[in-house]
Amino acid sequence: MTIYGDSQSGNCYKVQLVCALLKLDYQWIEVDILAGDTKQSAFLAKNPLGKIPLLALADGRTLSESNAIINYLAAGASLIPSDTFQLAKVQQWQFFEQYSHEPYIAVARFIAKYLGLPAERRAEYNAKQVGGHKALQVMEQQLHHTPYLLGEQLTTADISLYAYTHVADEGGFSLQQYPAIQAWLERIQQQTDYVAMG
Amino acid sequence: MTIYGDSQSGNCYKVQLVCALLKLDYQWIEVDILAGDTKQSAFLAKNPLGKIPLLALADGRTLSESNAIINYLAAGASLIPSDTFQLAKVQQWQFFEQYSHEPYIAVARFIAKYLGLPAERRAEYNAKQVGGHKALQVMEQQLHHTPYLLGEQLTTADISLYAYTHVADEGGFSLQQYPAIQAWLERIQQQTDYVAMG
Repeated sequence: MTIYGDSQSGNCYKVQLVCALLKLDYQWIEVDILAGDTKQSAFLAKNPLGKIPLLALADGRTLSESNAIINYLAAGASLIPSDTFQLAKVQQWQFFEQYSHEPYIAVARFIAKYLGLPAERRAEYNAKQVGGHKALQVMEQQLHHTPYLLGEQLTTADISLYAYTHVADEGGFSLQQYPAIQAWLERIQQQTDYVAMG
Repeated sequence: MTIYGDSQSGNCYKVQLVCALLKLDYQWIEVDILAGDTKQSAFLAKNPLGKIPLLALADGRTLSESNAIINYLAAGASLIPSDTFQLAKVQQWQFFEQYSHEPYIAVARFIAKYLGLPAERRAEYNAKQVGGHKALQVMEQQLHHTPYLLGEQLTTADISLYAYTHVADEGGFSLQQYPAIQAWLERIQQQTDYVAMG
């Protein structure tokens, strides 16, 4: 299988991390968003929305959306619970990640790290801090009670939230006030076959 | 089971529609977002993020995020494919819905219909039109080829996208230029046990 992605993107890193933890082989094709690679017609033919990561199977079928991709790759492994309710809980955290976490923390990081925090986006950057901390508080509340988001077991929900949380400082979010999140980050980093981003 | 929701919310309607199609019994508790119901401590104890819809099972367990809820409720029914790749495709469309569709179409509708399109949000409303049409074009492209988003079979992915697409005009999006989407809306409305929103 082939994965199209940008090594600096947390959404793409989710896929790399799951492949590493599950020892899955794949071909990586680097796609540079800032250079406009995702707006080229060859890429748009694969994914009309022009987004990465994108998974392409040997038979030509494609799958987009980072969280859908990692749930597909991890199907049958311990990263995906077999219980129906627990499986829904994985999705709950992943939808939370895409709606209430990524648009604040990842976008603030993008504005600061890749755009250099230009004056015209300073107000937007500041506004992102509020939503980002709200998301971090929700995570802290859960991780204060359980080692992983769903309980005792590492799941793809943790991978999804880990991707941008562990670089949240690059978006201006200090994790000092979130001890449970800090312990959880270390717990993930200590997994056998863990790989760092980038 | 109990569902906390707002009858005017497309996200909540997804749950109502799936329950209707599957003939599931539930208790509905109306929650008024504009009146601040989701910011009350009693509700926040159930869902720390203060969002609806929220599913509460008889044993006290709760589940949030509309798409996670409908996938849970439809588990084992024909609305959820059993094939692993097809299941991931359902999620692909649902993550697309929450990241690339809802934040434009549902938010534009909210600004226009519930806030009365105030002058200070006019620029935001206009900006939402671009992203909303981009999402509609992606849907049109798929529905030009297949009757439902995944192919021949109605799935929860269709329910997720139907919720705000069928009221997109309330957010300023004319569907005149999307004939495949219009045919798809009718196809869903003709389902046995279909219920309208509100």
